[in-house]
Amino acid sequence: MELVFVGLGLNDDKGITVKGLEETRTADAIFMETYTSRMPDFSMPRFEQATGRKVQLIKRQDLEEDNGKVILQAAKAGKAVFLVPGDPFIATTHVTLRIDAEKAGIKTRVVHGISIMSAIVSLSGLHNYKFGKTVTVPFADNFSETPYNVIAQNKKLGLHTLCLLDLRAAENRYLTINEGLKLLLEVEAKKNLGIITAATPALGLARAGGDNPVLKADFVEKLVNYDFGQPPFSLIIPGDMHFMEVDALIAFAGAPAEFKRLSR
Amino acid sequence: MELVFVGLGLNDDKGITVKGLEETRTADAIFMETYTSRMPDFSMPRFEQATGRKVQLIKRQDLEEDNGKVILQAAKAGKAVFLVPGDPFIATTHVTLRIDAEKAGIKTRVVHGISIMSAIVSLSGLHNYKFGKTVTVPFADNFSETPYNVIAQNKKLGLHTLCLLDLRAAENRYLTINEGLKLLLEVEAKKNLGIITAATPALGLARAGGDNPVLKADFVEKLVNYDFGQPPFSLIIPGDMHFMEVDALIAFAGAPAEFKRLSR
Repeated sequence: MELVFVGLGLNDDKGITVKGLEETRTADAIFMETYTSRMPDFSMPRFEQATGRKVQLIKRQDLEEDNGKVILQAAKAGKAVFLVPGDPFIATTHVTLRIDAEKAGIKTRVVHGISIMSAIVSLSGLHNYKFGKTVTVPFADNFSETPYNVIAQNKKLGLHTLCLLDLRAAENRYLTINEGLKLLLEVEAKKNLGIITAATPALGLARAGGDNPVLKADFVEKLVNYDFGQPPFSLIIPGDMHFMEVDALIAFAGAPAEFKRLSR
Repeated sequence: MELVFVGLGLNDDKGITVKGLEETRTADAIFMETYTSRMPDFSMPRFEQATGRKVQLIKRQDLEEDNGKVILQAAKAGKAVFLVPGDPFIATTHVTLRIDAEKAGIKTRVVHGISIMSAIVSLSGLHNYKFGKTVTVPFADNFSETPYNVIAQNKKLGLHTLCLLDLRAAENRYLTINEGLKLLLEVEAKKNLGIITAATPALGLARAGGDNPVLKADFVEKLVNYDFGQPPFSLIIPGDMHFMEVDALIAFAGAPAEFKRLSR
């Protein structure tokens, strides 16, 4: 009677922890979902070989329509492992399943995985305690002024904003950094508060956690045309920057020397 | 000519990713520091056996006084791996070493580890995008009103505050959740803004990432006397809570039923 949520971490089948691998090897039943996040280099045959076990793929419908009945039944009969990209609960998708399990008297445990949230902050060289509220920039067909407003609110407090960019993994659609910036510039054109202009510094990141992540810091007018390659993507709009943060952007993210004058 | 920063993740020698373990096995020289964070169940003999390699422990002085000369020299001669608790750059301690390496023409890479930041958010069941600025509560001998002010600012925006609690790993000193709350209540007694009172809901977490993490949500008057056991500790002061967040605190953190009326 046990359900263990195991994070797969980022990018591929080697992003899981040693602990996570051991839990998987000793499970009675193993489930995995791949719809909450993209893991570009994940190989199921390689993973099944590493664990010596068969993994059952779970679709969004299995969880949303059936309330995860298959998983809960397996957990009632023995030890079930549910493999989730990133960290199991950074996205709130699976919190309900965990609550349902506990209510059914099934013991739950969490083996954490690397989350895109901390990987991005860590790669950026920006100081962790200077990030304000995080926001997701939705696709144009779901347009919202919220991201602009959150950035404005954070900037007022001198804080950085991590902007996650919307994705529809099942449709293989990923909002690019260029599109995200254009959507923010549209709001600027209307509101005219000077929050996101051609001269605003920004940082784009592609494939954090992969073997070839791309980081590029520049002013928005340049970044809006920069080619970041394949997804997943994310975007940071810095607030006030310490000179060590500026140095890091120059050293790790190819920021132009003009960034020096942004130090506070 | 390569320096790979590898995150050890949380708690023990099995918190490292499979990728991190492989990088360690194939390195020409391996260094590790254990002073930026506590890993209560880390066993060096077990880790050296798992990697088949000898690991050289690095002290704070080696990095601060010598600017990591030993590590940089090894990286110039071949592939050096530097093992760091958590994620290598969530604490800013090692950003300078990475900048120095890049300036010396040494290629650097990052293999992420699980960060306490995302593990705590994930365990809490609170929504990730509703966290504001993070803050560290210092020891009484280094007293500051900043944590109180950050919590006040976040609450005004309806946001949760993750409070890291100060530690001096070398002295084996860890600010407890009880002490942290008392320090915040002291500021409240002076400022009287109603930010942290006996009736404020809060969430304490001990040993996130370990096999027996303790989560306890309650009103401050109760939590201030709750026994969380061994460190490391952290504290979350929630802002406005969605009913699903309240449900999660009741299911996973033993919050009393009175928390229901806090839903917004």
